[in-house]
Amino acid sequence: MNRPDRTIEAVGTAELMRQMGQAARAASREIALATLAQKNEALLAASKAIRSSSSAILAANSKDVEAARIRGTTGAFIDRLTLNDSRIAAIGRSLEEIAALKDPVGSVLAKWQRPNGLVIERVRVPLGVIGIIYESRPNVTADAGALCLKSGNAAILRGGSESQHSSRAIHACLVEGLKAAGLPETAIQLVPTTDREAVGHMLKGLDGAIDVIVPRGGKSLVARVQEEARVPVFAHLEGICHTYVDKDADLEMAREIVLNAKLRRTGICGATETLLVDRAAPEHYLPVLVKALLDAGCAVRGDEATQQADSRATPATEEDWATEYLDAIISVKLVDGVGGAIDHIARYGSQHTDAIVTNNATAAEEFLRRVDSAIVLHNASTQFADGGEFGFGAEIGIATGKMHARGPVGVEQLTSFKYVVHGAGQVRPV
Amino acid sequence: MNRPDRTIEAVGTAELMRQMGQAARAASREIALATLAQKNEALLAASKAIRSSSSAILAANSKDVEAARIRGTTGAFIDRLTLNDSRIAAIGRSLEEIAALKDPVGSVLAKWQRPNGLVIERVRVPLGVIGIIYESRPNVTADAGALCLKSGNAAILRGGSESQHSSRAIHACLVEGLKAAGLPETAIQLVPTTDREAVGHMLKGLDGAIDVIVPRGGKSLVARVQEEARVPVFAHLEGICHTYVDKDADLEMAREIVLNAKLRRTGICGATETLLVDRAAPEHYLPVLVKALLDAGCAVRGDEATQQADSRATPATEEDWATEYLDAIISVKLVDGVGGAIDHIARYGSQHTDAIVTNNATAAEEFLRRVDSAIVLHNASTQFADGGEFGFGAEIGIATGKMHARGPVGVEQLTSFKYVVHGAGQVRPV
Repeated sequence: MNRPDRTIEAVGTAELMRQMGQAARAASREIALATLAQKNEALLAASKAIRSSSSAILAANSKDVEAARIRGTTGAFIDRLTLNDSRIAAIGRSLEEIAALKDPVGSVLAKWQRPNGLVIERVRVPLGVIGIIYESRPNVTADAGALCLKSGNAAILRGGSESQHSSRAIHACLVEGLKAAGLPETAIQLVPTTDREAVGHMLKGLDGAIDVIVPRGGKSLVARVQEEARVPVFAHLEGICHTYVDKDADLEMAREIVLNAKLRRTGICGATETLLVDRAAPEHYLPVLVKALLDAGCAVRGDEATQQADSRATPATEEDWATEYLDAIISVKLVDGVGGAIDHIARYGSQHTDAIVTNNATAAEEFLRRVDSAIVLHNASTQFADGGEFGFGAEIGIATGKMHARGPVGVEQLTSFKYVVHGAGQVRPV
Repeated sequence: MNRPDRTIEAVGTAELMRQMGQAARAASREIALATLAQKNEALLAASKAIRSSSSAILAANSKDVEAARIRGTTGAFIDRLTLNDSRIAAIGRSLEEIAALKDPVGSVLAKWQRPNGLVIERVRVPLGVIGIIYESRPNVTADAGALCLKSGNAAILRGGSESQHSSRAIHACLVEGLKAAGLPETAIQLVPTTDREAVGHMLKGLDGAIDVIVPRGGKSLVARVQEEARVPVFAHLEGICHTYVDKDADLEMAREIVLNAKLRRTGICGATETLLVDRAAPEHYLPVLVKALLDAGCAVRGDEATQQADSRATPATEEDWATEYLDAIISVKLVDGVGGAIDHIARYGSQHTDAIVTNNATAAEEFLRRVDSAIVLHNASTQFADGGEFGFGAEIGIATGKMHARGPVGVEQLTSFKYVVHGAGQVRPV
């Protein structure tokens, strides 16, 4: 298999992307049939290459970091961008962990026999070609490429311009792994240009070559992808997650869950953004919860009752209920029982992850049934919204659509299925 | 729940459709929680209403038929459009059959415990609101509405203008069923206008109110829907299905399968359009198969070998390999073994349904693994591509995408899932 002609100057972005699409489609047919041993050999060889290339990767990364500094970028961004020995080791380890996962391809999901003797199997198959469009974090190059490979898919990776040198150095290691295992090196391609036109072509599907787009990045990236994509997208636009504390909650459990759900990490999509408290709960519940949050350094924006509960709380506006802070800020509101919580979540939520804390089984059941989110939890922190915590191994993201992949997207969610029908000459009666 | 203001003259198409979307979204929350008994009560009451309203339905239908005649429409179309007592009885029976299906909602698809004690369940839930856009056949109104209801979804039905009176009469029976069961009558709405603008609004999703669009009709309708829809679509554009006869096929079995696959019904999407014969097969295979087709009244368009096999065969052009005839016409070609068949199907197929006839297990296995279609069959007719034949009960269509619903779309495929997590106060470690 020939690599596409990467001389962008020679062919232009449109033609380059078309060639990458064709190469990915061809590679997808081979990678779909690769054995587990081959795929794991590629992953382990790539991991080895990452470790042995650490000085080259660090050199490439320092170019990206230097460029970011010159542009005057802020501290948190620089921190996400910067690699060091331990982060490179973590990238290598992540590839090994993906190698250790079960093969998601080929398993028989269901099998039944029809009265006419036909045996029908529903068999897991790869999706085909996955386009990943991501920003800043260089490790996504390795994780996304590896998850696609493990699930038998070809990948077209389009990293952000900010991490382009790092991504190229990491991508070279993935290609080394593919070569070592005798797999087509075009099974994981990195778009060699950072011009935005390339993203536009990917969103249109490269003449049918791309089956799914996965965006990894901020809200504006995801919004653009969801708006423009002509192929299915696995993504969530935002995670406006709620924790509802019922009148029948254990207060100490509620306090621990709320603090963890909001503050363990404020920047992840499973972080709680709104605390809803049952109006019928004992009077001290709201002040205790609000005080715990404020004492832990969290800003509280609340309704009247919340402001009365603690003078440090400030008023919440209508906009607050619809805001994903991704920061140490929480909105707090009294609601009329589990029904009130469900209504609030239906109105302001993002169908991502929502939790109820209660010892009342009926209230829990009602909440779990009626809240229309990808993940609903009873007596646990919303920060468990994570493929690793679900036992899926690494995840490529979390999806909130109703299609196919909903919730954490791991290797199994990067597959589709086909029906395989075994006959003995059956024809269909008229 | 109030029905939207259906006075289109008063509010205009855009506002009417917006109101229908809001009403459907509200109804979807109730219908999602309806018990199996309630849903079945509604279906059986609707079936009863269909039978007892047969004269009203026939009167409405005769208006549609009369209008079609005045437009000078052709025989086959009139036949599809025309209802009579036995067709009305069949519509009623179909509702009863859907009532007899298992409840697809609420079943636990998977359940596992994490080391921290969290119990995670994957539970089947309805998709939400399904928009169905269809042409001519009046029975789709009943079937589509009933399948959505059984799967706990609200439906917005937009039938073709040709069958508008029939559809309204049938829809009235469905609403009667919903009322009898105490379910919101807006759970199944029929768009009261036949202007094309309404379709455009549906394809944009009615401000997020529609979760999935299902088009039922000809290729131009499906193409428009796939091109314009901003929400997921369950559909297939065409069914260019292949039957490949391997050198190790039993000729008599092959002959029966090919005749059935092509000619049992030529107008359905699972009909074979191209016969591929192994170049290494015994010399008499091709002539026997071609003669059988020609003798049965099928036109044969073939390559050189096919034309030599029978003088009645005419030459196939490049376009023939990519054509879904939906008629008594077949294209025929010699290929180089199972690999040649796989390559031809990858190039010209539509990822719908393809079959191999062979007694060679290795060849069958290779074909079944490498052909990337929703349904692949071994020693059976492609006309088995059907939800009823798969044991799904009625189907709303067949999908060829890689997402979610692939192959026949029955009640189970009209659902999604959510993760329900049961904890005992777990918080996520830092």
